[in-house]
Amino acid sequence: MSVRVGVFGATGYTGQELVRLLAAHPHVEVAFATGSAEGYLAHEKGLERAADAYLLALPHGISARYAAQLGEQRPQAVVIDLSGDLRLKEPGAYQRWYGQEHPAPQLLARAVYGLTEVYRPWLHGARLISNPGCYATSVLLPLVPLLAERLVDASDIVVDAKSGATGAGRTLREDLLFCEMAGDFSAYAPGRVHRHVGEMEAVLRERSGQEPALTFCPHLLPVKRGILSALYLRTPHAAAHLAGALRTYYAGSPFVRVVDGKPPRLSDVERTNDCLMSVHEAAPGRVVIFSTLDNLVKGAAGQAVQNLNLALGLPETAGLPLSAGAALTQGVS
Amino acid sequence: MSVRVGVFGATGYTGQELVRLLAAHPHVEVAFATGSAEGYLAHEKGLERAADAYLLALPHGISARYAAQLGEQRPQAVVIDLSGDLRLKEPGAYQRWYGQEHPAPQLLARAVYGLTEVYRPWLHGARLISNPGCYATSVLLPLVPLLAERLVDASDIVVDAKSGATGAGRTLREDLLFCEMAGDFSAYAPGRVHRHVGEMEAVLRERSGQEPALTFCPHLLPVKRGILSALYLRTPHAAAHLAGALRTYYAGSPFVRVVDGKPPRLSDVERTNDCLMSVHEAAPGRVVIFSTLDNLVKGAAGQAVQNLNLALGLPETAGLPLSAGAALTQGVS
Amino acid sequence: MSVRVGVFGATGYTGQELVRLLAAHPHVEVAFATGSAEGYLAHEKGLERAADAYLLALPHGISARYAAQLGEQRPQAVVIDLSGDLRLKEPGAYQRWYGQEHPAPQLLARAVYGLTEVYRPWLHGARLISNPGCYATSVLLPLVPLLAERLVDASDIVVDAKSGATGAGRTLREDLLFCEMAGDFSAYAPGRVHRHVGEMEAVLRERSGQEPALTFCPHLLPVKRGILSALYLRTPHAAAHLAGALRTYYAGSPFVRVVDGKPPRLSDVERTNDCLMSVHEAAPGRVVIFSTLDNLVKGAAGQAVQNLNLALGLPETAGLPLSAGAALTQGVS
Amino acid sequence: MSVRVGVFGATGYTGQELVRLLAAHPHVEVAFATGSAEGYLAHEKGLERAADAYLLALPHGISARYAAQLGEQRPQAVVIDLSGDLRLKEPGAYQRWYGQEHPAPQLLARAVYGLTEVYRPWLHGARLISNPGCYATSVLLPLVPLLAERLVDASDIVVDAKSGATGAGRTLREDLLFCEMAGDFSAYAPGRVHRHVGEMEAVLRERSGQEPALTFCPHLLPVKRGILSALYLRTPHAAAHLAGALRTYYAGSPFVRVVDGKPPRLSDVERTNDCLMSVHEAAPGRVVIFSTLDNLVKGAAGQAVQNLNLALGLPETAGLPLSAGAALTQGVS
Repeated sequence: MSVRVGVFGATGYTGQELVRLLAAHPHVEVAFATGSAEGYLAHEKGLERAADAYLLALPHGISARYAAQLGEQRPQAVVIDLSGDLRLKEPGAYQRWYGQEHPAPQLLARAVYGLTEVYRPWLHGARLISNPGCYATSVLLPLVPLLAERLVDASDIVVDAKSGATGAGRTLREDLLFCEMAGDFSAYAPGRVHRHVGEMEAVLRERSGQEPALTFCPHLLPVKRGILSALYLRTPHAAAHLAGALRTYYAGSPFVRVVDGKPPRLSDVERTNDCLMSVHEAAPGRVVIFSTLDNLVKGAAGQAVQNLNLALGLPETAGLPLSAGAALTQGVS
Repeated sequence: MSVRVGVFGATGYTGQELVRLLAAHPHVEVAFATGSAEGYLAHEKGLERAADAYLLALPHGISARYAAQLGEQRPQAVVIDLSGDLRLKEPGAYQRWYGQEHPAPQLLARAVYGLTEVYRPWLHGARLISNPGCYATSVLLPLVPLLAERLVDASDIVVDAKSGATGAGRTLREDLLFCEMAGDFSAYAPGRVHRHVGEMEAVLRERSGQEPALTFCPHLLPVKRGILSALYLRTPHAAAHLAGALRTYYAGSPFVRVVDGKPPRLSDVERTNDCLMSVHEAAPGRVVIFSTLDNLVKGAAGQAVQNLNLALGLPETAGLPLSAGAALTQGVS
Repeated sequence: MSVRVGVFGATGYTGQELVRLLAAHPHVEVAFATGSAEGYLAHEKGLERAADAYLLALPHGISARYAAQLGEQRPQAVVIDLSGDLRLKEPGAYQRWYGQEHPAPQLLARAVYGLTEVYRPWLHGARLISNPGCYATSVLLPLVPLLAERLVDASDIVVDAKSGATGAGRTLREDLLFCEMAGDFSAYAPGRVHRHVGEMEAVLRERSGQEPALTFCPHLLPVKRGILSALYLRTPHAAAHLAGALRTYYAGSPFVRVVDGKPPRLSDVERTNDCLMSVHEAAPGRVVIFSTLDNLVKGAAGQAVQNLNLALGLPETAGLPLSAGAALTQGVS
Repeated sequence: MSVRVGVFGATGYTGQELVRLLAAHPHVEVAFATGSAEGYLAHEKGLERAADAYLLALPHGISARYAAQLGEQRPQAVVIDLSGDLRLKEPGAYQRWYGQEHPAPQLLARAVYGLTEVYRPWLHGARLISNPGCYATSVLLPLVPLLAERLVDASDIVVDAKSGATGAGRTLREDLLFCEMAGDFSAYAPGRVHRHVGEMEAVLRERSGQEPALTFCPHLLPVKRGILSALYLRTPHAAAHLAGALRTYYAGSPFVRVVDGKPPRLSDVERTNDCLMSVHEAAPGRVVIFSTLDNLVKGAAGQAVQNLNLALGLPETAGLPLSAGAALTQGVS
């Protein structure tokens, strides 16, 4: 017996990945998948279609309106919003980071933040889930346990993050043309400008009870998919101690793993739902943590499916790609 | 109840793809997968291990020796050789194209050529299978039906083929370094020099009863995977007529499809076992056919699994990746 | 004493390359360079500015209008049109290939076709020059001498051409996004559809007195710059004989060279004004010729500067980049 | 009247860039350029050849031996060592960072460190110059003035650096293969492991009189050339104040420039001798500086030519590529 799932925004990179994952999911049937090319008329039609769960891969500002309408028309259905609309809980924060009034503020208190491994208890049976940002996922998974246990200094966090170009979506922008990107590399939104800063600091504040100060510089890599974030942290502890704390925290979470030796690379997590991290000594009193994931999978569509599984009472790993590493090491002697 | 499969040569690109596919195969258990990094000692050990089927992703010259030994020690097992060792049947041809004496000529008559859609009847229950070359698969799938039905001129076949770099294997050659390949493109082995010419002409001769004359120029693309071959053919027939003949021939073959409109591209078949082709009018009396496949899947590991399925009486498509196109169109309105 | 040169369309890839070359040209001063971002108002202003030569890197349909107006206002100036507007001489051909009425048919008879090595005598002192297409340059340089001397069969010419993405210009098209192109490869406009077919056949007809039949299939490479064309030709002659004929024809032309051994690759000509070619035996009665050039230099801006030099009586090689090969071999022991 | 220059190690990426620059240099004649493919026999022969200057693009450990021998045989000649052999002055430091005994310790005191803009007074007329590391150049150019003027905290410097693959040289390593690097990205040598840490800290100590503490994490970009370093610094000053201080320091240095607005990108400096930097506010008390250069030009061969010019009394910019930006803005309206 399959769960019927509808996808809004199925023609973007995230939407395509969603459809790809759901089509191979053993307990799911794709009820409909509506593209956005035709404007949003097609979506409006989708609103009338019955499904057990709706995944919204729509632009922010539009997505929450759909979530609100689905909440009224299909109160029993699971709704997962992959846009940024429901990530910030504080009144005023959306206006500050997104530069517009919130389209459905009444949903903010209800939406569960879908950083699966951190908010798992609240995700079981949830009906409205806000899927985290891709950068935020790569940064929060290592930071939340370390700040919550006060193992690193919350007041001095430096994150240098790099993302493949699908993170920017299928947008007709000159800087995203092949001839502009191939062979090039650049930083953008340096310091505290990127929208995910608000999202990250809010979660860190909520989980640790401390006021974090984050320097966050994203970069655009000439690759299609993958995020690698380097976190420079001040701590009195050894790298091995922090690695141990992370391993303990994620002991029951198959997709989040701490590796030893060489830092993990994009290809280690490509097309998987994994987030891999490693901890290294830096200057005295400093460590560096590398955290990597596939922005379209654990950073978007994969984590949405993981959350869908929890919301529906399915196994957490159902329909999620086997890690390449796991596949390879399974039988190789 | 799973079939136990052993893989020799599991650390090359083809071997990795084999392990990845077999690990996700619903009816298969990877009994062992032996790398080649340690030289061939590890392989020798593998020869003592029991399995129901053995896949050889070893260098030519070595592979047939393993096939011979397995044939003696495990006569009931299925052996699939992915090297070029068992592709040429004529005595002398191996010496001419591979420049060395054949390591196990006694196997040549027994080995079934594993171009699945063409030799399917012989593959059911086969015990020794020679998996075709990647270029050869992309060229023979469109050519065999057209030559067999005498729809195109066998004496004037021009093939301009382009392959991603995994086709050259994980070899430490200066021309395969990132800094040499990125942003570059080149032809190699022009005319009638490439080993697959002998393989292709032998199959065409055998299936059509005509003596083919092939011009074949391979090129190295700055991409990791994928082959796109352009076949320039002389014919009195319209492109649509040839497309129809190909569709009829492959009607029962889910992985080989003729598309209309735009020529198929590498991304259409990436990580799938598909071979897509299209037929277009060129100058009067000439058509051009584009044929594309993923060199590591339909061009190597995927076709090997397809052949394994037939040899073992499993469903032909078992364990083979769902086409991206099929996944996407399944539910999108 | 410098020649004052103005550039229209300086913000496209060709226009940028023009400005880069002209800025380093020892006998040239850039009088002005007008972008197109602002629409064509800025260009209109440029029409009032005095210069000794004007280079038009504008879209077709617009370019010839500028050429016409400059011809009236500055009859002494050299005008070089890099668009396709003045390449086809036959009435009706423009309408057929470009799908619109010609904006300035009175210029067609006057414009010299700037395939430098072939039309050099007419380019000395020319006042209106039509710069050839990039594909056309790569195909015509090997074909013109061989057809003119009747060394190959004009009625059966197959060209499989591959170009980097700057050939498509700085256009906001989804298929030119980094995420669409990276790792991909495809054919387009197969058979006889591309506009350069008309241009190539007209020149071949004019130079050889024969009616050519051309099959031409362009492909889009995931690289920024460079064209490699493979020409499959029918001939009773040996490859070496054709190579000799080409060497004789281009003896006094420093930028066009026939190489032996391995086929030339994109990187051999990158950022140079060279066109390199090689001739190889294929099937009996067939040879294949590889021809490579940088589409932005010899295929556009570099050939325009070469033509400018001839028109102004400057040394033909002035301001044109030294070949990387020439630089390297100059002093290496 | 040309200066005669000999190049050792002309077949590596740095050596090729050296030959390319020297071949176009108006005051230089390449006396000889010796490859390393033949082992070092060819080099030994080079030692007998007379030249006015010798550039050594040889592996460390070998390079200093050549420098020593040239110093004895050609005491009047300029010798520029591009390896790491002469960069560390402290006894024991070479052993610590390079893991071997120094091949010519007697040269260490004599060699001038060729970070041109910082050590310019000592480079005029110098006879033995140690060319800086590529990462070190990108980090030291922004850091030296800020530490020397005590504008930033020397005890807490975090550098996240990214380099193209030519930085690793033309080495046959599996991780440098196209199929391993394309689409991938990774960190290596995290913390304080990379050899350039020793070099950077020694220069900072010497120029600022403070003991610096550096966290340095290099990354390998899937591009051929270019370095972008992000420097996270603690300071009581505003970003604009630091930018002003850097502008003042580099007022007379045409190749080092501070830009406003968007951070500089690799393509801004590709194939130029420029180092561009920008300063941005981060968290309170923190700024981030981006510094970018072409690792083969300002990071190696270009800076060597710049140093050669100073040593020989030539104009500092002679033979060095005009910045693309400068070329473009020169005449564009």
